[in-house]
Amino acid sequence: MKEPPLSHLDKAGRARMVDVTAKLPTARMARAEAVVILGRALAARLRRTGALSKGNVLETARLAGIQGAKQTANLIPLCHPLPLDVIEVHATIVGDRVLIETMARARAATGVEMEALTAASVAALTVYDMCKAASKNIVIGPIRLLEKSGGRSGHFLRKGARHARKG
Amino acid sequence: MKEPPLSHLDKAGRARMVDVTAKLPTARMARAEAVVILGRALAARLRRTGALSKGNVLETARLAGIQGAKQTANLIPLCHPLPLDVIEVHATIVGDRVLIETMARARAATGVEMEALTAASVAALTVYDMCKAASKNIVIGPIRLLEKSGGRSGHFLRKGARHARKG
Amino acid sequence: MKEPPLSHLDKAGRARMVDVTAKLPTARMARAEAVVILGRALAARLRRTGALSKGNVLETARLAGIQGAKQTANLIPLCHPLPLDVIEVHATIVGDRVLIETMARARAATGVEMEALTAASVAALTVYDMCKAASKNIVIGPIRLLEKSGGRSGHFLRKGARHARKG
Amino acid sequence: MKEPPLSHLDKAGRARMVDVTAKLPTARMARAEAVVILGRALAARLRRTGALSKGNVLETARLAGIQGAKQTANLIPLCHPLPLDVIEVHATIVGDRVLIETMARARAATGVEMEALTAASVAALTVYDMCKAASKNIVIGPIRLLEKSGGRSGHFLRKGARHARKG
Amino acid sequence: MKEPPLSHLDKAGRARMVDVTAKLPTARMARAEAVVILGRALAARLRRTGALSKGNVLETARLAGIQGAKQTANLIPLCHPLPLDVIEVHATIVGDRVLIETMARARAATGVEMEALTAASVAALTVYDMCKAASKNIVIGPIRLLEKSGGRSGHFLRKGARHARKG
Amino acid sequence: MKEPPLSHLDKAGRARMVDVTAKLPTARMARAEAVVILGRALAARLRRTGALSKGNVLETARLAGIQGAKQTANLIPLCHPLPLDVIEVHATIVGDRVLIETMARARAATGVEMEALTAASVAALTVYDMCKAASKNIVIGPIRLLEKSGGRSGHFLRKGARHARKG
Repeated sequence: MKEPPLSHLDKAGRARMVDVTAKLPTARMARAEAVVILGRALAARLRRTGALSKGNVLETARLAGIQGAKQTANLIPLCHPLPLDVIEVHATIVGDRVLIETMARARAATGVEMEALTAASVAALTVYDMCKAASKNIVIGPIRLLEKSGGRSGHFLRKGARHARKG
Repeated sequence: MKEPPLSHLDKAGRARMVDVTAKLPTARMARAEAVVILGRALAARLRRTGALSKGNVLETARLAGIQGAKQTANLIPLCHPLPLDVIEVHATIVGDRVLIETMARARAATGVEMEALTAASVAALTVYDMCKAASKNIVIGPIRLLEKSGGRSGHFLRKGARHARKG
Repeated sequence: MKEPPLSHLDKAGRARMVDVTAKLPTARMARAEAVVILGRALAARLRRTGALSKGNVLETARLAGIQGAKQTANLIPLCHPLPLDVIEVHATIVGDRVLIETMARARAATGVEMEALTAASVAALTVYDMCKAASKNIVIGPIRLLEKSGGRSGHFLRKGARHARKG
Repeated sequence: MKEPPLSHLDKAGRARMVDVTAKLPTARMARAEAVVILGRALAARLRRTGALSKGNVLETARLAGIQGAKQTANLIPLCHPLPLDVIEVHATIVGDRVLIETMARARAATGVEMEALTAASVAALTVYDMCKAASKNIVIGPIRLLEKSGGRSGHFLRKGARHARKG
Repeated sequence: MKEPPLSHLDKAGRARMVDVTAKLPTARMARAEAVVILGRALAARLRRTGALSKGNVLETARLAGIQGAKQTANLIPLCHPLPLDVIEVHATIVGDRVLIETMARARAATGVEMEALTAASVAALTVYDMCKAASKNIVIGPIRLLEKSGGRSGHFLRKGARHARKG
Repeated sequence: MKEPPLSHLDKAGRARMVDVTAKLPTARMARAEAVVILGRALAARLRRTGALSKGNVLETARLAGIQGAKQTANLIPLCHPLPLDVIEVHATIVGDRVLIETMARARAATGVEMEALTAASVAALTVYDMCKAASKNIVIGPIRLLEKSGGRSGHFLRKGARHARKG
């Protein structure tokens, strides 16, 4: 069975951007998630502080994730700059952790997987930053792709992942 | 027992930057790690491709991590802009995964924990990006602090973490 | 009468980017203005310094406005990144003030109102910066939309505003 | 009486950055304000939507202001890059308008006036952006300095301005 | 014979962005080169250090060139932001110098000449930075256009320049 | 004779940032130059267009150089972010070319050579951009260091280079 190519390496093994000149823009979507494990005490405390404080940690993380997604091509060396149609970031406290779920959409010749993952990563780092004074045992991860559509490789839905939530 | 404050929330629960005006700059250091689980087949393949290709994936990730650390204050809303003395990023393939270890140093009135974590996150995202054509099951995490020194909260070394490697 | 929605809030009241996936790109145009009140003495003095100095304050402001417009999506959290067709910034001294007028054009699924307003704001801040050593009483404002076309909400021309000037 | 120099113009009238090499860092502070006139109907509506929505418009604006302040030297051509000790942004709805008040602090050889004004401007643009679907008659301004201390020109407090609020 | 216009100056001689609203996107390509003269001793030494070190200097430069090209519109005031299809950067040591060759492609209403030249310049500066501890006599230049296609002015190939290399 | 180290490569030959933790800040200065060869016809034409147009090409280039210098650490992967005390950019038409001369100053633990060279490069690219519609034979180079002081390697003045001009 032939292995799919490592598209970011040329024949000589050097890093390269993929040339998408020949590809027509199609509707691309990708969803990703990131988990931030706060620990039971800190998560309980964040919930206890009530709607405003909790909201402000999660809201700050959500906005940072949206802004971070727009920086994807500046952060990831071989990514293409993309005109994004939307970035969504959801964040909720569940048990001892914050669950972050992101979605990116663009009409582009290349996928938006990295935009969704970058949004999730930056949102997670922001939760970490806002809670780090209270604990040094916060852990980020897993960060992973949930769903992807619109490219040549077809539709992908991670086993066990829900479909995208509506608006 | 009194809980340490969530320093990024003011008394009314609103997000805020911490005012470090009254703090003198001290020598700050932080180390972080990120894991990228490629899976056995992909990790083996990356090793098989030989020094150049492997080197180029890891080297691209290392450089992206260094560059990413310089963007920390632009990505994380409540972080202070810092003049960094150094960012180090190490990356190695171990078993089925890439291990990324970072270190940040600055003489500053605030810590460099987020710089080390941002370097690790961006390096991990770059490994993901360069390998994603070969697998949709790559997972990033855990991302976490290994060591921290120089601030009021004293020295922190994660249980089980080695001390920083030399140069 | 039904109120137009606050499009940047979702049903639960959380900030969000508007999803423009379903909208086709159309020719968008927006014009904005910003006023910088220097006071009579400072405005007279700027005029007196002759073509070069005056030109350099206004020219620096114009260039800063053009460059600032390209940063709109990085500055305004819920704005979409847009490939701009042109940014124009005009600046003139009239009486005791500098009048800044901007125009942005793009073929995009969303409007360029914020690009025109950001250009005007950054140009105004630059005039302020270059003149602030001479007065602490400089005031910026009003900053407002003059004209807008190309979106679903139809053509808008502020009462009393001239149409766009030619080239 | 000798006029204070336009420090951003050299003897030949060309734009220049001020050379601060010979100045020692001192504690700098500046406060600024920006007004966003929404109109009675829109302001009332924003208040009516309750704590969450209102909070999210103001909170998004506050965060954008903080992030914007860090971009000051990238936006305003002749500004120096500064390591900021804190940026504070307050936002409240009063009558028909949003009042934004900012404070910047740094230990630096040059002032933080432009950082405070840029924070105020970007926060104001963000309020505009989030409310613009509901009205085309939103007007930004005045934007102005409230207080400034720490430089050679001494302490400045705008007539009628309150002193900085605490934390 | 009529001279081609200086398109970045308006009729009054003021700097301006060219309005490309009326132009349809076409397939644009540009290639550029930059030379970095290291001197015989330093070039020989870089070759002597073996594949890894040499590779890392050239690879770092290549990645910096790719990342730099994405910043073109932020660096060059009158450039349009463009969604790039690919940036390629090649770097080799020949005799006493490093030869850098770049290619940019986009489907856009304006050319990618500045993107190719910016990539070449940033890659050259990066070689300089990495070698500067060993010599203060490194010189960058010439930096120039090799080939350009896709615009109204037709195909251009610099006399003596090879056609673009394949992938 | 021992060769000076390639400080941006570690012992294993991998790219790295130099750790300046142990170095105290000192007053750093660097000057660089860049040449843009326009050709006789284009240079004459630029002069002929009179003070305003010529001034605007050179002024735009100067401002772009100043702004570009502030981006040095974002463009050159292994550069440290620095709080600059001043960037000066001079530009004049001499014969068939534009001569650009830059100076950077900072109180820092590392030099400002790359800031001066980046300012010169970005100013040169901006001249190129503004004149490229009139000629495809514009060539940039040489770009080189003129003078450097403040570091351990002592004072360097390129043979034949003048000392820095006054303000």
